Amino acid sequence: MTTLRTPGPTIGVVGGGQLGRMLAEAAAPLGVEVVVLDPTPDCPAALVARDQIVADFDDEAGIRDLAERADILTFEIELADQNVMDRISEETGTPVHPKPSTLETIHDKLVQKRELEDAGVPVPPFRKVDDADDIRAAIDDYGAPVMLKARTGGYDGRGNVPVESKADAEDALESVAGPAMVESFVDFEREVSVIAVKGDDEVATFPLGENVHEDEILRETIVPARSSEAVTERAYDVARDVLEVMDGRGVYGIELFEATDGEILLNEIAPRPHNSGHWTIEGTQTSQFEQHIRAVLGWPLGSTALRSPTVMTNLLGDVEEEGLAQLGDIDEILETPGASLHWYGKHQARPLRKMGHVTVTADGDDDSVDDLLETARDLKAAVTFQS
Amino acid sequence: MTTLRTPGPTIGVVGGGQLGRMLAEAAAPLGVEVVVLDPTPDCPAALVARDQIVADFDDEAGIRDLAERADILTFEIELADQNVMDRISEETGTPVHPKPSTLETIHDKLVQKRELEDAGVPVPPFRKVDDADDIRAAIDDYGAPVMLKARTGGYDGRGNVPVESKADAEDALESVAGPAMVESFVDFEREVSVIAVKGDDEVATFPLGENVHEDEILRETIVPARSSEAVTERAYDVARDVLEVMDGRGVYGIELFEATDGEILLNEIAPRPHNSGHWTIEGTQTSQFEQHIRAVLGWPLGSTALRSPTVMTNLLGDVEEEGLAQLGDIDEILETPGASLHWYGKHQARPLRKMGHVTVTADGDDDSVDDLLETARDLKAAVTFQS
Repeated sequence: MTTLRTPGPTIGVVGGGQLGRMLAEAAAPLGVEVVVLDPTPDCPAALVARDQIVADFDDEAGIRDLAERADILTFEIELADQNVMDRISEETGTPVHPKPSTLETIHDKLVQKRELEDAGVPVPPFRKVDDADDIRAAIDDYGAPVMLKARTGGYDGRGNVPVESKADAEDALESVAGPAMVESFVDFEREVSVIAVKGDDEVATFPLGENVHEDEILRETIVPARSSEAVTERAYDVARDVLEVMDGRGVYGIELFEATDGEILLNEIAPRPHNSGHWTIEGTQTSQFEQHIRAVLGWPLGSTALRSPTVMTNLLGDVEEEGLAQLGDIDEILETPGASLHWYGKHQARPLRKMGHVTVTADGDDDSVDDLLETARDLKAAVTFQS
Repeated sequence: MTTLRTPGPTIGVVGGGQLGRMLAEAAAPLGVEVVVLDPTPDCPAALVARDQIVADFDDEAGIRDLAERADILTFEIELADQNVMDRISEETGTPVHPKPSTLETIHDKLVQKRELEDAGVPVPPFRKVDDADDIRAAIDDYGAPVMLKARTGGYDGRGNVPVESKADAEDALESVAGPAMVESFVDFEREVSVIAVKGDDEVATFPLGENVHEDEILRETIVPARSSEAVTERAYDVARDVLEVMDGRGVYGIELFEATDGEILLNEIAPRPHNSGHWTIEGTQTSQFEQHIRAVLGWPLGSTALRSPTVMTNLLGDVEEEGLAQLGDIDEILETPGASLHWYGKHQARPLRKMGHVTVTADGDDDSVDDLLETARDLKAAVTFQS
């Protein structure tokens, strides 16, 4: 039986970027307070959160302070140090969700893939890389090109290096500079993702999203994905199998390949709300951020029903070099029926930095996702980053 | 041409109750900062706002501080002192919206009704009350009962006294204790309201809501109102005529009677977001709070298209006496598809105090507003205030 009080429960979030900001936005109507820990003064989440602790993501004193102020700890970046969080959770009695062990599993892509494969989750062929010979052997087995991945620390495509031929193996390995793994390239029809939620005693999946990447950075999410019903169901099945492997409550962003033969293969997992789930703020009855708040608190999950077809487009820093964040010509976004603007409040714009996003929901029954995608692209083209 | 920066523009809001809180919630995704002025430390809006200035609503030093920090001043309570705001706006150069002159007009219900009548807005018959004879004359003219109203300071039905017969005139006048007016009772089919927005160079109206009051306090809003199309159009016409009289940008809550003969008559105006517009957060593409933010900044207004039929029910303090705010058994609200919970973060519950609200949107095409109303009532009945 859930009871609301004032002040409500406090969630301590390691990380205060746009995910922390949107978590705090979702927490406020429920009377839930959010305190974030982030090294950047006046980080994006600071505007909406109850408070920010200015400290590095692995700063023990800062995390202890956060744990002492919070009823539950969670994180919005994978840079959180699982050992530190585990120990401080033990010391302070403040639970962490998802569990640090899950963070540890996900942190090392090789460990992640092995555990998931063991659990029956379909993954592309992969192998551990100790030296360039392993890459060449992978090319023999899977065919060129293959994808060389840093086992730890990569995100938004950083640490991923395509290897076109055996001759490139040495150079590729050098550029990754650290423990690595190699995967077969998937010949995919499209990339899709399931935002899945593990609650106290229940799970939920959001409608399948179709993701458009460029230079390995997410540009657009289209919902519902233009996949067949059978493929969509397969994606939900895989997502539920992934949740079985994850330990602890919360939202997981599960990125998948829809192969040309209709198979679903796991690509990556994020143990937190995910960029490809931002569309849920307007597109579903309960957003991924509200679900994460509910899940980590052990509250009942909400409905993930689609309210209307929806397209989300990222506003990436379209600048030559770092400078003050200024986005001009937003009038068309503000004036377009069904368009919603989200500005993350970052002080500096950098090339390809995620500065905000625009969501477009169907305005009438006639809008197809293709129409919405066209509108979203027009709106993005209308705004300009100024320096 | 509107440009976003970090930090974005700051809106200074006099009042930091639930309206200020929901304004700050709506401002955050747009990168707009909100600072509130409120005498209660840790007022509802404080959780989400950038900052709170703790000062009385008419505290000159406090309002000057607010004006100096803000790009635009607005208010979410009518208790703001229009003369003080006008003078400080002049001194600091920070504009106020809506204009203090509008606040002054609305503040005195007699002045308000006279100005609106002059502008051709249909109002119930009314007259100024200097003594009990005026009330008795009104009963002669309009028939009993009549409604005696304090000209200033009333809200949520406070200051409104029905007078059943001439014999009650003296007692009624004494209970109002101050300048008064008297109005004919309207034999209404239903009470409705239009949330209307005055932008820089445009106006917008939200879909007509039907309001259920009990003891003159709003209990439920049902959208779309169960009025005929002709009556609904008449309500929008009246709302637009009302906006003509109002000076300054912002959201106005326009409460109307739908008389049994289908006429629309003005009841009350609030120069701010209104309880009967809370449903817009989930029910329309742009909420009344986001519209107010856009309007006072002079930004383009957003679409007010209905996303789906919606019912809102207030969670009023259902307690015998004042005590700590605790709302139990919220699980059913959290679990019901289409239901959204808003908790205002007030520390104390008092009898009939507005503590939060629940919005229920249609989950499928089959939900009528009657179904939604039943769901909303069930959900309200399931929660209990604890002491």
